[in-house]
Amino acid sequence: MKALVYHGPGEKSLEDRPRPALQAPGDAIVRITKTTICGTDLHILKGDVPTCEPGRILGHEGVGIVEEVGTAVGAFKPGDHVLISCITSCARCEYCRRGMYSHCVEGGWILGNRIDGTQAEFVRIPHADNSLHAIPPGADEDALVMLSDILPTGYECGVLNGKVAPGSSVAIVGAGPIGLATLLTAQFYAPARIIMIDLDDNRLAVARKFGATDTFNSGRDPVVSLVRELTDGKGVDTAIEAVGIPATFALCEELVAPGGVIANVGVHGAKVDLHLEELWSRNITITTRLVDTVSTPMLLKTVEAKRLRPEQLVTHRFVLSDILEAYETFARAADTHALKVVIDT
Amino acid sequence: MKALVYHGPGEKSLEDRPRPALQAPGDAIVRITKTTICGTDLHILKGDVPTCEPGRILGHEGVGIVEEVGTAVGAFKPGDHVLISCITSCARCEYCRRGMYSHCVEGGWILGNRIDGTQAEFVRIPHADNSLHAIPPGADEDALVMLSDILPTGYECGVLNGKVAPGSSVAIVGAGPIGLATLLTAQFYAPARIIMIDLDDNRLAVARKFGATDTFNSGRDPVVSLVRELTDGKGVDTAIEAVGIPATFALCEELVAPGGVIANVGVHGAKVDLHLEELWSRNITITTRLVDTVSTPMLLKTVEAKRLRPEQLVTHRFVLSDILEAYETFARAADTHALKVVIDT
Repeated sequence: MKALVYHGPGEKSLEDRPRPALQAPGDAIVRITKTTICGTDLHILKGDVPTCEPGRILGHEGVGIVEEVGTAVGAFKPGDHVLISCITSCARCEYCRRGMYSHCVEGGWILGNRIDGTQAEFVRIPHADNSLHAIPPGADEDALVMLSDILPTGYECGVLNGKVAPGSSVAIVGAGPIGLATLLTAQFYAPARIIMIDLDDNRLAVARKFGATDTFNSGRDPVVSLVRELTDGKGVDTAIEAVGIPATFALCEELVAPGGVIANVGVHGAKVDLHLEELWSRNITITTRLVDTVSTPMLLKTVEAKRLRPEQLVTHRFVLSDILEAYETFARAADTHALKVVIDT
Repeated sequence: MKALVYHGPGEKSLEDRPRPALQAPGDAIVRITKTTICGTDLHILKGDVPTCEPGRILGHEGVGIVEEVGTAVGAFKPGDHVLISCITSCARCEYCRRGMYSHCVEGGWILGNRIDGTQAEFVRIPHADNSLHAIPPGADEDALVMLSDILPTGYECGVLNGKVAPGSSVAIVGAGPIGLATLLTAQFYAPARIIMIDLDDNRLAVARKFGATDTFNSGRDPVVSLVRELTDGKGVDTAIEAVGIPATFALCEELVAPGGVIANVGVHGAKVDLHLEELWSRNITITTRLVDTVSTPMLLKTVEAKRLRPEQLVTHRFVLSDILEAYETFARAADTHALKVVIDT
């Protein structure tokens, strides 16, 4: 089969690899129909993810058709249309029993990281009963492939952890795909204001189209004072960090109101300064989270009911044989205006 | 009346001052019967609290007898035995209506800071209806004076924010009065382990007497590996920072388990390093809080029911005319083994 293979920092190729086979009774083999590329794949290619070794097939997002199942799989059978969760979970370890699937002792984020992933014609999914989701008939595959990772990530790490609530004020720092996924799901809760902050005017225009009440360009606008003006001088109830660098986390520390939450969504590669000399008395909460994908069944319902339209995030479309071009388009987002690229296999 | 007056960094004196008078309809004048000294008073004396100006009577803890009330006071009358909350709250601003009394726009921590405090024979209490608590007949005044600040602080900022729960593991970094108050109230929730960490063996011995399951001296013991051994390699569900310096916050970052909480109680004067490059994926929560004293009515019931015995924290006793000696004893705690000093007025 064709597969996109990581060969160490900066190196990848599309090549022929053997089709995966069942290895454990809980495994399923899924024929991928659509996959996509995540910012995390770019992190791997920069060499930032040491758990991902050369030779690995990348990708942790996708939808497809079940091809084969192990003897312990009860929830799925060949021919079933399935959504692949980016998080693999055994459903029986201590963390899984607490709903913290991201820290499953046999799973977590392993697809396209510690085991071969979804940017291929076929993929092996361990613990298939809890790591795949049945897709309702007639569903839009473009929308669904967004539910493998970025929608539950924005929702769980940003919206749920950030306690977005009716009438509240929300600032989302970073209007990339993950910030926009957060924006889409924040609207479930009718916040009074959702302020999007980015350096890219194109992304801010998309954010306004997607429902942001206010947008600021942090390269140009005095963001802190403008946000204070919008919030009676207090700051926002929820500041969501959706970039992953010290400067954007620092901005969240300045934006959050007393009693508010900083919900971190970004993947960080360096420590940040936490200004406890200011914040110790402000009754704030800071949260971090690797997505657990506990919300995926709920998100599927919102997509089915058209309360959520994640297909809006898809800007480009490729076939698997052109995946190197898809990577190029996604990596050069400032020029190409790419948000999510869908790859049909 | 006699009062302990702050005269700028390093300077204080016991002197005669006029008795306070009612200034607003919501005020009460309280004759202090007992007060105490807080670590925050020492911070003020170091010059760390710029809101506290020279000439201020210090102190934000105390019990006493209502002497006089303004025309708007409905809950108290002269002769009532009352506990003074360290937090003054109007009960009607936006923050008060959310139970965030610490950020009351007309109050918060003002006693012995922005207005004259309780280390005197009399004190004026603004917004008396919501800033005083009735004391049940026969209650132990030593226990009650601990409820002005340190017990609700340890409970709200440490135990509640830290989500201490039955069967959970808790580490408290700092076994001073506030760490010990946290230890006492953590036991309401039957955690499986409460590990106390300090540099002072005397305080660790007190912690064991007060119910710590394990104690480590961080000047001598390899604390991180010992805590990991006690927690199946995971770390603790709740790490409570009860010191207020970068090193102890850093220790909490190393001690917290995936899915756990770092609850900050300490008053910080400097920024700390937040290791998001490690913690972004660990599903942790960090909280800060200035005590709201919303739990004081509940804590009064636990004292009355003898479920909480905060009088154990009292190690020394003085009269108001000897308050300078009381400060000396409290400030030299490593030598004197002082925890809380009670001052009878």
